[in-house]
Amino acid sequence: MIVSIIGVGLIGGSIALDLKKAGLAKQTFGVDRSEVNLQKAVELNIIDKGVSLDEACQISDLIILATPVSVASDILIEILDFIKTGTIILDVGSVKGAICKAIANHPKRKQFVACHPIAGTEFSGPEAAFTGLFQGKINIICNQEESDKEAVQKVKHLFEQMGSTNIFMDSSTHDKHITYVSHLSHITSFALSLTVQALEKDEKNIFNMAGSGFESTVRLAKSSADMWVPIFQANKEHMIAAIDAYINEMKRLKSFIENNENEKMQASIEQANNIRKIL
Amino acid sequence: MIVSIIGVGLIGGSIALDLKKAGLAKQTFGVDRSEVNLQKAVELNIIDKGVSLDEACQISDLIILATPVSVASDILIEILDFIKTGTIILDVGSVKGAICKAIANHPKRKQFVACHPIAGTEFSGPEAAFTGLFQGKINIICNQEESDKEAVQKVKHLFEQMGSTNIFMDSSTHDKHITYVSHLSHITSFALSLTVQALEKDEKNIFNMAGSGFESTVRLAKSSADMWVPIFQANKEHMIAAIDAYINEMKRLKSFIENNENEKMQASIEQANNIRKIL
Repeated sequence: MIVSIIGVGLIGGSIALDLKKAGLAKQTFGVDRSEVNLQKAVELNIIDKGVSLDEACQISDLIILATPVSVASDILIEILDFIKTGTIILDVGSVKGAICKAIANHPKRKQFVACHPIAGTEFSGPEAAFTGLFQGKINIICNQEESDKEAVQKVKHLFEQMGSTNIFMDSSTHDKHITYVSHLSHITSFALSLTVQALEKDEKNIFNMAGSGFESTVRLAKSSADMWVPIFQANKEHMIAAIDAYINEMKRLKSFIENNENEKMQASIEQANNIRKIL
Repeated sequence: MIVSIIGVGLIGGSIALDLKKAGLAKQTFGVDRSEVNLQKAVELNIIDKGVSLDEACQISDLIILATPVSVASDILIEILDFIKTGTIILDVGSVKGAICKAIANHPKRKQFVACHPIAGTEFSGPEAAFTGLFQGKINIICNQEESDKEAVQKVKHLFEQMGSTNIFMDSSTHDKHITYVSHLSHITSFALSLTVQALEKDEKNIFNMAGSGFESTVRLAKSSADMWVPIFQANKEHMIAAIDAYINEMKRLKSFIENNENEKMQASIEQANNIRKIL
């Protein structure tokens, strides 16, 4: 199978490495707006060489669309316009409603399988890619009934080969839930980093006094702006609702401190502790 | 050296285990309002046996005060009233201003060394205690000039033996900085857990879709209410200021999403990324 990766970063690169290792990709090509990234990806044996999007469409059996979500829909339309019958495209974006809507009526819609592998790190770019990123992780396939059955089977198999379990969901359910268990975590972490930096001019104090708790809570604040600005924008409505709910919760907890309502705070923390049962 | 631990939980228990391992504690006794905890601590070889606070004061060379901060000041006064000359007491609380103030004029003030080892996990109780918790960590000693020089030296040495590095700070500086690098992380994590639970009634969806990012951000929400309600209360003023600053930051980021101000969001995330340089 000839595989092309559009956007040779952490996710696209890691898929390429896994497919090579599993013997599923005979050749891997990369498309990226950054020549530097393409060169690095070749050096790191992620791709055999960089090609144009047109070339990728002509030669590939499988195309992995792994760009920021802001440009994914437009590139997907371009790809669908050009690819030959039988080529499968999957994407890996964190927001699924917009992209599914953008190509809903495209004559080659069925060749596309909308995916969201729940995997990643706070690092980005081809240097961040590694074999095994998807091992033990979940891959969410959205709106499977809009895709060719055989294409879905192939994509399922592919993620299984990388060690992932596939689950199925419609794109709007996906976007709502993922807001709370992923996007909200990122914005709270960015805000924490900014707040602490603004108030703690003396970086040495932060470094000395920060324990593993702060490190854990602020880890996602290291995440790439190029990836997250488009996600927040593409998932705007859900983000605003989630942030509002979260700010209200913060205000409620603050009022317990302000008014010495220790019993209410105790009950709230015990309720928060229930996350133990879930995770 | 005979050591008594007042509050045989994660921190007190881990100190006992380390002092035993280092051969510094010949005998360790425990004082706890929970008989169950005392019994567990004996079973886990954390302490030799449970004793009363009076007994602990009479027999100990070193007393480790490791209760929730809400009761620490009162217990400390009781201990200082009863101990013999030469006994050293240290505490491990996350808030230092209140306790230092409470005993500032006590005739035996010099026998007390105010400590805050920056170490812990989201678990609590004697079962959570383990050897090596303080390895590679920072211990903050506050208001050292109010303590006996020799007592400070002994406490420094003790934390060094457990693998920690001691730093020195006045209690009000400590309380201000620790708010931003510890207490704020905890309240944001509690709020995240509560928000997600309130909006995601279907726990299966949370479990399936949550990645390592959410787990990292919400980890501290598993922390003990018995420990954290008193900390928030004891550090009330700083907490309120920090929460206000944080809510303002969340509102600012939300407005960027709402108004499609992607460039401002990009700049803010890149600023947030600077935490990489610090941690």
